[in-house]
Amino acid sequence: MKKVVTFGELMLRLAPENYLRFVQSDRLEATFGGAEANVAVSLANYGLDAAFVSKLPEHEIGQMAVNSLRKFGVNTSYITRGGDRVGIYYCEKGASQRPSKVIYDRANSSIACASMSDFNWDEIFKGAKWFHFTGITPALSDNVAEICLKAVKEAKKRNIIVSCDLNFRKKLWSKEKAGLVMGKLCKYVDYCIANEEDAKDVFGIEADNTDINSGKLDREGYISVAQKLTKKFGFKGVAITLRESLSANDNNWSAMLYTGSKAYFSKKYAMHIVDRVGGGDSFGAGLIYSLVNGFGAQKTIEFAVAASCLKHSIEGDYNLVSIKEVEALAGGNGSGRVQR
Amino acid sequence: MKKVVTFGELMLRLAPENYLRFVQSDRLEATFGGAEANVAVSLANYGLDAAFVSKLPEHEIGQMAVNSLRKFGVNTSYITRGGDRVGIYYCEKGASQRPSKVIYDRANSSIACASMSDFNWDEIFKGAKWFHFTGITPALSDNVAEICLKAVKEAKKRNIIVSCDLNFRKKLWSKEKAGLVMGKLCKYVDYCIANEEDAKDVFGIEADNTDINSGKLDREGYISVAQKLTKKFGFKGVAITLRESLSANDNNWSAMLYTGSKAYFSKKYAMHIVDRVGGGDSFGAGLIYSLVNGFGAQKTIEFAVAASCLKHSIEGDYNLVSIKEVEALAGGNGSGRVQR
Amino acid sequence: MKKVVTFGELMLRLAPENYLRFVQSDRLEATFGGAEANVAVSLANYGLDAAFVSKLPEHEIGQMAVNSLRKFGVNTSYITRGGDRVGIYYCEKGASQRPSKVIYDRANSSIACASMSDFNWDEIFKGAKWFHFTGITPALSDNVAEICLKAVKEAKKRNIIVSCDLNFRKKLWSKEKAGLVMGKLCKYVDYCIANEEDAKDVFGIEADNTDINSGKLDREGYISVAQKLTKKFGFKGVAITLRESLSANDNNWSAMLYTGSKAYFSKKYAMHIVDRVGGGDSFGAGLIYSLVNGFGAQKTIEFAVAASCLKHSIEGDYNLVSIKEVEALAGGNGSGRVQR
Amino acid sequence: MKKVVTFGELMLRLAPENYLRFVQSDRLEATFGGAEANVAVSLANYGLDAAFVSKLPEHEIGQMAVNSLRKFGVNTSYITRGGDRVGIYYCEKGASQRPSKVIYDRANSSIACASMSDFNWDEIFKGAKWFHFTGITPALSDNVAEICLKAVKEAKKRNIIVSCDLNFRKKLWSKEKAGLVMGKLCKYVDYCIANEEDAKDVFGIEADNTDINSGKLDREGYISVAQKLTKKFGFKGVAITLRESLSANDNNWSAMLYTGSKAYFSKKYAMHIVDRVGGGDSFGAGLIYSLVNGFGAQKTIEFAVAASCLKHSIEGDYNLVSIKEVEALAGGNGSGRVQR
Amino acid sequence: MKKVVTFGELMLRLAPENYLRFVQSDRLEATFGGAEANVAVSLANYGLDAAFVSKLPEHEIGQMAVNSLRKFGVNTSYITRGGDRVGIYYCEKGASQRPSKVIYDRANSSIACASMSDFNWDEIFKGAKWFHFTGITPALSDNVAEICLKAVKEAKKRNIIVSCDLNFRKKLWSKEKAGLVMGKLCKYVDYCIANEEDAKDVFGIEADNTDINSGKLDREGYISVAQKLTKKFGFKGVAITLRESLSANDNNWSAMLYTGSKAYFSKKYAMHIVDRVGGGDSFGAGLIYSLVNGFGAQKTIEFAVAASCLKHSIEGDYNLVSIKEVEALAGGNGSGRVQR
Amino acid sequence: MKKVVTFGELMLRLAPENYLRFVQSDRLEATFGGAEANVAVSLANYGLDAAFVSKLPEHEIGQMAVNSLRKFGVNTSYITRGGDRVGIYYCEKGASQRPSKVIYDRANSSIACASMSDFNWDEIFKGAKWFHFTGITPALSDNVAEICLKAVKEAKKRNIIVSCDLNFRKKLWSKEKAGLVMGKLCKYVDYCIANEEDAKDVFGIEADNTDINSGKLDREGYISVAQKLTKKFGFKGVAITLRESLSANDNNWSAMLYTGSKAYFSKKYAMHIVDRVGGGDSFGAGLIYSLVNGFGAQKTIEFAVAASCLKHSIEGDYNLVSIKEVEALAGGNGSGRVQR
Repeated sequence: MKKVVTFGELMLRLAPENYLRFVQSDRLEATFGGAEANVAVSLANYGLDAAFVSKLPEHEIGQMAVNSLRKFGVNTSYITRGGDRVGIYYCEKGASQRPSKVIYDRANSSIACASMSDFNWDEIFKGAKWFHFTGITPALSDNVAEICLKAVKEAKKRNIIVSCDLNFRKKLWSKEKAGLVMGKLCKYVDYCIANEEDAKDVFGIEADNTDINSGKLDREGYISVAQKLTKKFGFKGVAITLRESLSANDNNWSAMLYTGSKAYFSKKYAMHIVDRVGGGDSFGAGLIYSLVNGFGAQKTIEFAVAASCLKHSIEGDYNLVSIKEVEALAGGNGSGRVQR
Repeated sequence: MKKVVTFGELMLRLAPENYLRFVQSDRLEATFGGAEANVAVSLANYGLDAAFVSKLPEHEIGQMAVNSLRKFGVNTSYITRGGDRVGIYYCEKGASQRPSKVIYDRANSSIACASMSDFNWDEIFKGAKWFHFTGITPALSDNVAEICLKAVKEAKKRNIIVSCDLNFRKKLWSKEKAGLVMGKLCKYVDYCIANEEDAKDVFGIEADNTDINSGKLDREGYISVAQKLTKKFGFKGVAITLRESLSANDNNWSAMLYTGSKAYFSKKYAMHIVDRVGGGDSFGAGLIYSLVNGFGAQKTIEFAVAASCLKHSIEGDYNLVSIKEVEALAGGNGSGRVQR
Repeated sequence: MKKVVTFGELMLRLAPENYLRFVQSDRLEATFGGAEANVAVSLANYGLDAAFVSKLPEHEIGQMAVNSLRKFGVNTSYITRGGDRVGIYYCEKGASQRPSKVIYDRANSSIACASMSDFNWDEIFKGAKWFHFTGITPALSDNVAEICLKAVKEAKKRNIIVSCDLNFRKKLWSKEKAGLVMGKLCKYVDYCIANEEDAKDVFGIEADNTDINSGKLDREGYISVAQKLTKKFGFKGVAITLRESLSANDNNWSAMLYTGSKAYFSKKYAMHIVDRVGGGDSFGAGLIYSLVNGFGAQKTIEFAVAASCLKHSIEGDYNLVSIKEVEALAGGNGSGRVQR
Repeated sequence: MKKVVTFGELMLRLAPENYLRFVQSDRLEATFGGAEANVAVSLANYGLDAAFVSKLPEHEIGQMAVNSLRKFGVNTSYITRGGDRVGIYYCEKGASQRPSKVIYDRANSSIACASMSDFNWDEIFKGAKWFHFTGITPALSDNVAEICLKAVKEAKKRNIIVSCDLNFRKKLWSKEKAGLVMGKLCKYVDYCIANEEDAKDVFGIEADNTDINSGKLDREGYISVAQKLTKKFGFKGVAITLRESLSANDNNWSAMLYTGSKAYFSKKYAMHIVDRVGGGDSFGAGLIYSLVNGFGAQKTIEFAVAASCLKHSIEGDYNLVSIKEVEALAGGNGSGRVQR
Repeated sequence: MKKVVTFGELMLRLAPENYLRFVQSDRLEATFGGAEANVAVSLANYGLDAAFVSKLPEHEIGQMAVNSLRKFGVNTSYITRGGDRVGIYYCEKGASQRPSKVIYDRANSSIACASMSDFNWDEIFKGAKWFHFTGITPALSDNVAEICLKAVKEAKKRNIIVSCDLNFRKKLWSKEKAGLVMGKLCKYVDYCIANEEDAKDVFGIEADNTDINSGKLDREGYISVAQKLTKKFGFKGVAITLRESLSANDNNWSAMLYTGSKAYFSKKYAMHIVDRVGGGDSFGAGLIYSLVNGFGAQKTIEFAVAASCLKHSIEGDYNLVSIKEVEALAGGNGSGRVQR
Repeated sequence: MKKVVTFGELMLRLAPENYLRFVQSDRLEATFGGAEANVAVSLANYGLDAAFVSKLPEHEIGQMAVNSLRKFGVNTSYITRGGDRVGIYYCEKGASQRPSKVIYDRANSSIACASMSDFNWDEIFKGAKWFHFTGITPALSDNVAEICLKAVKEAKKRNIIVSCDLNFRKKLWSKEKAGLVMGKLCKYVDYCIANEEDAKDVFGIEADNTDINSGKLDREGYISVAQKLTKKFGFKGVAITLRESLSANDNNWSAMLYTGSKAYFSKKYAMHIVDRVGGGDSFGAGLIYSLVNGFGAQKTIEFAVAASCLKHSIEGDYNLVSIKEVEALAGGNGSGRVQR
């Protein structure tokens, strides 16, 4: 089994049932999620040795988080146990014209307070082929940004391929700080994943004529964004997801992979959404799986988009689909007939 | 805080979960709703001192009803406690070609059996700016029709603005009786809210060339309905909601405000519906909020329609949205992106 | 009350709640269903004396199955009690591009192991007007195929009309075996129900230029299929359902009734699906109800399609709608307005 | 199958989940119950042809009530459909020192408003061996009291045995009225079921030295109550249940059958209660089953008490146990070992 | 209405359903609780103007907390909105030999980070008769300890009676610090509430020969504890609760009120527990209600213990009982008969 | 980590919620359990490398079973995937005098149909210290009995300690066959676990004067049973659990360990039961954990009984407790105070 390592925070996700608003709920669905953990679950489902690195408290809530990963076969042996709390995010599902709402309560989590000595990268990277993180991880705290920098350097030393999803979160840090820190980290990154907002927010790199809220996207602009990113950091590949938000229920979804020489666009899917959180992460996982297995660029982007399209039909952060299911969709069957 | 008073019935709403039919259910969601109480909840959410006037039994089911309002900040201090029962309505949610179904069991409720002495309008109207009721209230019983007449007269004495949603319910009274009673009450009304059916059912006022069941509406016809209503009762304003029912899941929604001089039409929203009950009430509340705050006619109708559009994405009778959320939608953001 | 007899298997249906995947579920909805039992429930709802014939264990799980039918008025007095187990099917609801998934665990069920002596057709057919089965029943085991052959012969002896839904299930038998067995049985059948796949899979009868997975159907091709079937077996009527699968959530639905002389096409419904399992069975029941009552061909096919359109808005296998509701839809009201 | 007829009201029972109080609940369990219907369900479970006679609305809530009986095999063919509403009772389960609470909302139910012509006793009593009602039925309204009197007279004409559970409910009528009406009815009754309170409340017949609230009962006093009742009405048998309420969770339970010549006491069971509503009805059903089958007095009282002891371990009004289970307990096995 | 003010933290309580362990749960009951808020809810239920003072975030989770109090009539107008987070406690219910488990995640809550200027005691204490807090409030942070000291001083200035429940929590502060801070605060306290552990942990005051874990208590020792406390701080009254823990399901419960001259012991209740969290708070509320209304010492302690006995039969932190229910139990009816 | 291997079947457990009967349930809790898997989960919780060996289908229901073990850290790498079905057991929880009920539907499961070549014992036993199975495993089929014999022989070859819980199930095989097969297997067993019934049912070895159903046990008799077993098979130790069934809710629980020289009795626990299924398995796991770690006989039996006492307070088959929790109870704290 090929070993892939991801590093970040795993949070408790508290969500009202169905389309209830927070103020209507006296019972919350308690699942777990976080950008890099979500990627690890996808990869474990695809049969890789997916190791998630983080820090979680010793108490039962920390154990619930670990169990949520073990259940799907993620390698949790590098998770350090300690610290005070599991980060939380409250998540209310939108419908029609009402947008989804996320409230973070993640400050002072065990991973945000972690120190350099909590992680033994020698052991973690033993036999690893790929390392993945997102812009959320270094945004957690200065400590974690340092650990992240250490991790990418250690990865590069061992010829481990590094991928990063820019994933800008304005509630965690300013654009300025993000630009500074991510600028340092991206020097060690081989594959960059982003949406147009990320590139602009983090590095001021912008595509022309695109209005995020209008739900219409200018595909050509994305190529120039990818070119600028590649120029700046020398990425082997830049993948950009293209979301058209028609309503909280209906989105169009596609993506582009730019390889330095050429841009490959995927099919576009019209999705009726069950849960869109983790959509980007499932794209990243599809991309990593394809590249680790040496798929060509077109096949890679089709696999990644089909995988993440399916994620939108699944509750929770984790993308619980098989390679076979992704390939069936990428191969053209999206009609939703019953499989008996 | 501006004080608004509404008067009517608050019922226990018993509904199967999700899309289950009555005969499939051995557990029912137990929430509360009623046209005028729904308006009060909206207004309390918008920060007004919204007082709901009614009568409810002293027992625990009556208390559940009171608590459902207190929870959202409605002023319940004018609710008289006594009588035998809380009115009930059973509500089965439709889907696709299957319509929603409502079964009333509201006869002999505490409010339907209330007497004139149950309400002290001097105290109730102290400091009030606005009084609102709907055609359901006088339809409950002759007693309540009398009380209602008393209320509007007392309101007028105090220069309190009066609004009325015609809200014709054929299971409560005949068109003839409705016309008679509402005709008396409307003399004291400043703002009238209706849909096309109401105007026709109650006063025989009709727009041409409209087929309610076809889902297609002739907007121009609504102006003539508003004009006729205004002519008959001297309303300061007439607001008409325009619903196009494509299926139980999908409706188009817009409205018109006619101010005597001009008709203002709102944007039209294509809605994927979570729960349409209370949609009209949330429109009324948006209208009252806007007028109490002196918004212009176009802003008023846009606010009212955006508010009620959002209601269709929310479970239960009550519209649980903030001013900020309504304004975001009225201002153009209906794309449903996640708000982090 | 007209008596209709159906014969087949009733299974325990275990399904995750809402859109959860199997691997996310630690609680399963436990309802019951099976092609011929589903037909019986529909017919009981329409007021017929609908008798379901099968074999179920004596234990409580068998009793749950019986109760699920009694609840809706099905005549269960001809169900033999005995054998070891209730067949099971696990059912995961699809969404958007993710198809629904069915896993069968029905081998060695009481009915699959039943013997000829378990059923007294003299008593069962007393007063009966119609006998219905589907291609699933003879596929259960050679025993049951023999019993089925006995049943149709006994029915014919008594001038009971026989209908059969081809319902090919590739997990139960091969196309070759299906063709052989169904070929024998169809000699005794008056009305044949099928979809295009069935005719091809069972008898190699095919319509040209149709791609099932594309979701587009060539209506003309269906006429030729019906003609070929009629030619081969001398059916009085052949009904073919026409499903266009746009996604797991959205399907178009219509059907054709071919009477030997002419093909009658129904309206086509654009459905937003709640649960599509049992859709075909509800069509068959609508057809039987209409024919038993002597409706004309066009009215028959409209009733059957409207009935099965409504089924897609209902959870579970059973179509829980009234004649009145079907007629309202067939008569043109599909706008989904609230019925108060 | 021996046919037993019971006559009374079937209500919708709305109950918070587990031990929640009404004011904590936004979802209610919706089951059905009523003294005479509960008896019918028990008897159907024991394999008798148990017919329940009542009146229920035509709408879906009425249908839910009918289905709840059909599910367990009760003969519902004599239930008249019509009238406005299903009676309701709200039921909050007590725990420890907190008593259970019942709120009735049953006025104006279809059965309470029924008229003499709603019931054809000729047809109802065809082939019947036994007729059962309780003191609740005539308390519903004067109409129903008249119908009840008619029913017992018709029963007597046909040599049908009549049993009556006194079941006094102070919220339905006064002691005086109860005494008057029940006095007339009891002339036609063969077997009388009561608890000590009933005899006192209805007929002023009292056992000495018993304090209901203390939870301690003077068994000897019951014999004198039975003797007085027998003397007054010439009953063939009087059965009295003996409940010792230690807390809402723990009760002792036993009973006495007095046959005119001798009193037979049952074993006493120490019960840890799941749901005590319907406990008395399940006792009545056990008694009727035993007497219909000619069991001796001691066996009769042991069967009835064991049956009702088991009821206390079952949620809802209906006693869902088999003859085999009752006999196992009556025969001495109350240790609760797993039955594999 | 007499006005009582309480001051402290209101937390989100996340609890698995029924007896599930944390690691078994993917859905958590989300209610709210906190020692002083629990007292306020009890007092609002008893009809007082109970104002709860705290600080909660502006976001929806903060709003849920406010609504949980408004629902039961608590005066929330002095709750300052702001800060980052709602404190959380995870709560797993024990059973039999398995103890309940509480995990706190309350650091950095809005109230813990509140500043002196967040509260206007002039306004808060307008018309107030009583002020209550517990040892948890000053333990939240040094800030809050200062605010608490300010509050008691302001209360004393206005002749408002002050009560304090020692409520020592070892996870919030050390015994040493507790002793120091509580020592200062208790100078302004009139009525002190404690259990034996509290007095020892906070002030080193100890009763002889008592083993908390053995479940056996030496009542006489409590008198000496109360005497020592009274001597040290000049309390008008000291109330001590006496819990005997037999298992997680079964506890005995009683209490003592020492008035400086005499010790009054209550009845002892053997409780079968539904939820013991908030048991002490409901005792405090019963005490305050009794004293505010001038009940004598024996009646006071009986009311307080009966109230808190009932709390143990109720889910969640809040004691949702009426005066009538408490008085019925205190008056001797604990047999748990159904109240119809 | 010490490696322990267990071998057997893992079944889907379908159970109504709370105390509902099967016939009341339209939703079933879906967890997993099986004697040897239950032992593995306990041991994984105690920190051992617990490997469970079995065969499960490749489909999603098989995957659910695997995930249920991975979640708690069980080593599932030796589970062969294939075959047709997951065995099922339906489980209805008893209450008071109503016993729990188990219905098996496990015939033809993947493991029951497994063949010798499905398991590579060389690899499985690499590094293992202990092998455990129960009498259920060889009872599944002749195939599996052969595999089991192979396994114990392979274990013995490698000096792996072997334990066996006799666990007689009369629905799986006859006493005669059990005696024959178990007799062969027990020659390779070091530690035997049983209850009195097992020894009698399988080997005809009986303790005098004991009536299983009476709930009273003669402890002395157990010593003679252990002696006879030891004499016959040369066991190093025989452990016998002593259950006194007072009701479905209340049991007393203790055990004895006989080491050839002496019998060690544990404390006896009076348990209020949440779920007793898996109680024996959790005892076995406690025993293995203690013996693997070289605990003395008295400490061993106390640990095993405390562990299994706690199991009775936990829902589902798996005993989800930590070493710390077991030791706290074994060390004397069973009072159930809240642990904050």
